[in-house]
Parts: sequence; structure tokens; C-alpha cells
Amino acid sequence: RDDHVTLSHGSGGKATHNLIEGIFAPAFANTILDRMEDSATITLGDQRLAFTTDSYVVNPLFFAGGDIGRLAVHGTINDLAMAGADPLYLSAGIILEEGFAIEHLQRIVDSMARAAHEAGVLIVTGDTKVVQRAKADGIFINTAGVGSVRASANLGQALVAPGDRVLLSGSVGDHGIAIMLAREELDIETEVSSDSAALHTLVAALLDRIGTRLHCLKDPTRGGVATALNEVALSAEVSIALDERAIPVHEGVRGACEILGLDALTIANEGKLLAFIAPEAEQEALRALRAHPLGREAAVIGTVQAEFPGMVFLRTDIGGTRVLDMLVGDPLPRIC
Amino acid sequence: RDDHVTLSHGSGGKATHNLIEGIFAPAFANTILDRMEDSATITLGDQRLAFTTDSYVVNPLFFAGGDIGRLAVHGTINDLAMAGADPLYLSAGIILEEGFAIEHLQRIVDSMARAAHEAGVLIVTGDTKVVQRAKADGIFINTAGVGSVRASANLGQALVAPGDRVLLSGSVGDHGIAIMLAREELDIETEVSSDSAALHTLVAALLDRIGTRLHCLKDPTRGGVATALNEVALSAEVSIALDERAIPVHEGVRGACEILGLDALTIANEGKLLAFIAPEAEQEALRALRAHPLGREAAVIGTVQAEFPGMVFLRTDIGGTRVLDMLVGDPLPRIC
Ligand SMILES: Nc1ncnc2c1ncn2[C@@H]1O[C@H](COP(=O)(O)OP(=O)(O)OP(=O)(O)O)[C@@H](O)[C@H]1O
Ligand SMILES: Nc1ncnc2c1ncn2[C@@H]1O[C@H](COP(=O)(O)OP(=O)(O)OP(=O)(O)O)[C@@H](O)[C@H]1O
Ligand SMILES: [Mg+2]
Ligand SMILES: [Mg+2]
Ligand SMILES: [Mg+2]
Ligand SMILES: [Mg+2]
Ligand SMILES: [Mg+2]
Ligand SMILES: [Mg+2]
Repeated sequence: RDDHVTLSHGSGGKATHNLIEGIFAPAFANTILDRMEDSATITLGDQRLAFTTDSYVVNPLFFAGGDIGRLAVHGTINDLAMAGADPLYLSAGIILEEGFAIEHLQRIVDSMARAAHEAGVLIVTGDTKVVQRAKADGIFINTAGVGSVRASANLGQALVAPGDRVLLSGSVGDHGIAIMLAREELDIETEVSSDSAALHTLVAALLDRIGTRLHCLKDPTRGGVATALNEVALSAEVSIALDERAIPVHEGVRGACEILGLDALTIANEGKLLAFIAPEAEQEALRALRAHPLGREAAVIGTVQAEFPGMVFLRTDIGGTRVLDMLVGDPLPRIC
Repeated sequence: RDDHVTLSHGSGGKATHNLIEGIFAPAFANTILDRMEDSATITLGDQRLAFTTDSYVVNPLFFAGGDIGRLAVHGTINDLAMAGADPLYLSAGIILEEGFAIEHLQRIVDSMARAAHEAGVLIVTGDTKVVQRAKADGIFINTAGVGSVRASANLGQALVAPGDRVLLSGSVGDHGIAIMLAREELDIETEVSSDSAALHTLVAALLDRIGTRLHCLKDPTRGGVATALNEVALSAEVSIALDERAIPVHEGVRGACEILGLDALTIANEGKLLAFIAPEAEQEALRALRAHPLGREAAVIGTVQAEFPGMVFLRTDIGGTRVLDMLVGDPLPRIC
């Protein structure tokens, strides 16, 4: 066990997983948190609610396809959507560094307001703190969210079963590579935009079509598709077999990954979802996703299996099979 | 208008108020946020819920009477309690600085868990981010909270009316002075402990006794009693007349304030509440507060008046009367 926090603890990959399992989960343990879903699902009276939080520390604050404010709204909406919830209310917890330009704050706040308005959610409560220079990095934003779980939703990692199909709603790696390119430490000539988007209407379309044949949703954010699938495999005690050729990767992302020696499957996305679906609903689900503007490139990328629980296997382009692990280390700190 | 963020924007006083009124409130405007209460109150089906958030950036992390983890649990519980809600569920959004000692993290997390357990709330969702050295200061914690508004509660700044009595649940300034002493920049020989405490059972006792004759609750955190009362006076369009002699101030706090030239009424508290009460319920309310361990020093400190809306007046020890303004500047940055 490490003595000190490292950047890898924030990667969303293996070190984050170990930190959460080693420190937070045991201390806070309760039957809701223990499920380790994207959102907590809580029942109050006749209401099933989803409740979630994320902090955003992305660097830089502005990038192709978005900014920290837009990300902070979309990201929390998406964790609510992964519980099958209609997002309703958000909080905005802002930590500012002394000296931060009010003009930049205004742009970010306007961007949050626009993203919330577009998605039909209200920011109903907030908090504003300031720390001295060099005690933060411009601005950090925490959003928490509350949503109402749709009547047709019954989702969870525990419901993933052998035979289930794994669907991905579109291309991988766009967000992470867009951030990396925005850092301008690299001299790569390609145009990649963040995929930052609110996925709740895509989820609603899927639930309307296939109801409880949808078993689980997960947004492959930090740690990418590889990490998200490993988490599901561990939690559901299944293995997952992926077909690399089926996974959409945009040209610019593929090129940047080759140059940088990165695996697009470990790179963060902010507008994609993985859906675990009863086999008989595969084609219906695919049609539902593809009919939605955010799911046009949706694909069936794999199958859930009973043997080798906890493992993810990748049938590669060139015909071999390899084990696909969670992200190890942190090639792209502060991606969201 | 300032061009850059200053520490005063985080004081909880006048500059914070102006920043929120100038930037956040107009951008996010909606009928729930516009009320500017400690918690948003939302209705879902047959449920009235309270939803709130606060980030904690206190420095140092450990101090007499508490630590950042305990504060993060109590503070958010208290904002829920100020809406008359029973606190139920919290989120934990953690931002860590690379290099932070895991041992300190463990202590803080254990302290959060203990405070949550003592208060009967569950931490059901969380997030963990890491930033590079000198891009944060050890650890920042955001908690958001969801609670269920008690059936007997009908609270809000808008319900404060001329004639209402202002009650304070105990002494002022303990938290702020405890933090200042913990900074060890001072050589003052006094023992002051933070008053950090969860106030929901005190609120329940009060509501059980006086129901809707309780008009409004507010916890005087950053900016202290002076700022909290000015906010209510502005929002309810009333004035408030205070009696300085009635306001409990512990000896150590009084001494430290004299040496430092601070006004105890502008100093942060983390386990106190202000209650606005129909005049006929004054004595019943006082008894209910004093019967509770957290309200033993409760006192009637003032009266609400119709004339001079937006103003707070202080009848001083020595018999004069002065205007009591919100906190201006920030004598104690990062108090919570
Ligand atoms: N500090 C924490 N305390 C309690 N639970 C936590 C904490 N950090 C994370 N978790 C829990 O661990 C699980 C994984 O969290 P994680 O933040 O990786 O998920 P995510 O929000 O879906 O991903 P991302 O943060 O990349 O968007 C969730 O169930 C979350 O509630
Ligand atoms: N960044 C923000 N966005 C939206 N609303 C905000 C923001 N910051 C504060 N507010 C709102 O302004 C009001 C005052 O917030 P403030 O944080 O001062 O209250 P508090 O949490 O009761 O005090 P403290 O933070 O000192 O505990 C609340 O209604 C809060 O929801
Ligand atoms: Mg997620
Ligand atoms: Mg998330
Ligand atoms: Mg606050
Ligand atoms: Mg408050
Ligand atoms: Mg508060
Ligand atoms: Mg998260």
C-alpha cells in the first residue's frame, strides 16, 4: 500500500479502484454505497431517486468541444442516467483560486447554465469557496445530482449475466485526446473534439424500447472502456469478450494514440455509454441507439461469459486474443 | 466589479454575497435557487426533499474540536436541518493533492464515517480526484446532502415577519477562533474548541414543540451571526434589532477577539443556529432549545422590525446602538 497519494490514484483506473476499495468503501460501508454504481439509488416514500457526485479538475479549462463547466453538468447528468434516472436537480460547488479572472469564471458559469438548460435540469443550490494562490488551480467544480429513476428501469452491475451483449454508443477516446491536444505540449496535426454530451435522452430511448431487457449501463469516463468493463466483470463475477474490430475509433484519435503509444480503450469519454443487454434484445437496442443523434455509431462490441470471472478479453484486429486490464498508471492526469 | 477573484470572495460575507448575486444567481436563475436558502427544497411525488452542498477547504485540517472530515459531515447536515429536514444521505467528493499522506487521508475518512454514523446519515456516493503538487492544498472535501423535510416544517426567509423573536442556540465565534489558534501564527494562551456539531436533533426538538410558529432557521457559518442576520433582513425586507448583552460569547473567544481586533459576531460557527419565531412561542422555543445538549446556552437575542428593511442594529453593552453590517474583507480565510 502506498504511503502517499500519487497521480495514479486519480486516473480512474486500477490505483483509484484500490484506493476506493481500501479506504473509502470500508469506512463508509452501507448497502447502497457497497453496490459501487455510477449513482446511488435511494427509495423515499413512493419515489426511487438517483443521487451522485463528481468533482471536475480538468486542465486546461477550455478545450475543443467543451469546457470544465459543460463537463461538470454533463458528467453528473450521465451518472444519473446510468441509473436509468431522469436528471432533475444539480448542485454547484465551486472552489476558486485567488487571482482567477472573473471573466473566465463568467464564461464557465454561463457554460454550466447553458448545458443545464439544454438538458432540462435546474441548478438549485451551490457553494463558493476561495483559496490562496498556488493552493488550487484556477477553478475546481463539484456537481452533485438528483434524478428520478424511470419506472421501466431495473439496472445494476449485479444484473449482468452470461450471454448478455455489450453495446457501445459510439467512438472511444475523443474526450481524452481532445484534452491532450489542448495542452499544446504536443505537435500533432489532427482535429479531435471532446464528445462531452448529456446521455439521458439516449438512455430514455433505450429504456422505452427494451425496458428490463436492459440490465446495466456504465459511462466509460476516466480509465476508458477497458476500466469500465473490468469493473463490471469484477462486480458481476463474469468475464467479457470484446471484438476490437467492432469498436469505433475516430481517425484522429487512432493517429494520436499511435504516436503517443496510448490504448484508445483506456482513454476517457464524456458522452458515451456501455449497455449490457439480454441477447434477444440486441438488435432492437442497437436500432434504438442508432436512431438517436448521440448513438449513430453504436455497435455491439462484445459478449458476457460465465468462465474466468473478473476478466476482460480482447479479440484483436489481427486475430489474437489478449487480456484487457484496467488502466494502470495515469498517462493523462486531470482529464475531467 | 472586481476583475479577479480575491480571498474576500470566499469570506461568506459581503464580497461572497456580491459574487453570488452578480454571477451565479443570474446565470442559474430558477424559482428554487432564487430563494437563496441554506438548502434547496424540492418536491418529488409525495416527498418534500432538501438538497444542499458545501465544499470544505479549511486550513489546518486538524484542530481543537474537529477536523475537515467532521466539519464536512456536520456542515452539510446543518444546511439540511435549516430547511427543517431530517438528513438522510450524503455524497463525498474528494480532491487530493499529489503527495498527501495516506495516513492523514485515513484519519479524515474515519472521522467522516464516525460523524455520519453518530448523526444517522449514510454516505452513499462519492468521487476521488487527484491534482499535482501545489495545485491543491492537501485535501478539499465537497459533501452534498439529501434530506426529508419534516411534516411540521414550513420554513423560509420570506416567512420572517415583524415581531418575530430571534433566538440563538449558543455561544458565538468558537469555531473561527479555534481555527485561528490552530494556525499557530499567534501566541495566545487560551483554550477554544470548535463547536462543530450536527444540529438536526436540536431542530427536530424545536419543530416538535412549536411547529409552524418556527418561521426560519439559519446557521451562522462563514461571516458569522452578523452576516446571517443581514442576509435574512435583506431577503425578508425587515430590520433586526439585537441586544449585544444577550449574545453568549465564551471567555476565550472574547479575549482572542480583543487581542486580534475582531468582532465575534462576524466569526464563523459550525454548531449554532439562529431561529426566527412567532413572538407568542418565544418561551416555549427557548425551553425546547435549552433542554437539548446543543442548546444549553440558547438565548433570545433580538426582535424583527418593519422599519428600515434590510438593516441590522445592535444595542451595545454600553447602551448605544450601531448598525451591524455583513462581514467585509476576510480576516480568517479558509475557516471551513
Ligand atoms: N471518496 C469516495 N467515497 C465514497 N465512494 C466513492 C469515493 N470515490 C468514489 N466512490 C465510489 O466509487 C465508485 C466509482 O467512482 P468513480 O468516480 O470512479 O465513478 P464515476 O463517477 O462513474 O467515474 P468518473 O469519476 O470518472 O466520472 C462509485 O460508486 C463512487 O460512488
Ligand atoms: N456557486 C454557486 N452557485 C449557485 N448558488 C450558490 C453558489 N454559491 C452559493 N450559492 C447559494 O447562495 C446561498 C448562500 O450560500 P452559502 O454557501 O453562503 O450558504 P451556506 O452553505 O449556508 O454557508 P457556508 O458555505 O458558510 O456554510 C445559498 O442559497 C447557496 O445555494
Ligand atoms: Mg460514471
Ligand atoms: Mg462520473
Ligand atoms: Mg455554502
Ligand atoms: Mg448554512
Ligand atoms: Mg453551509
Ligand atoms: Mg466519479
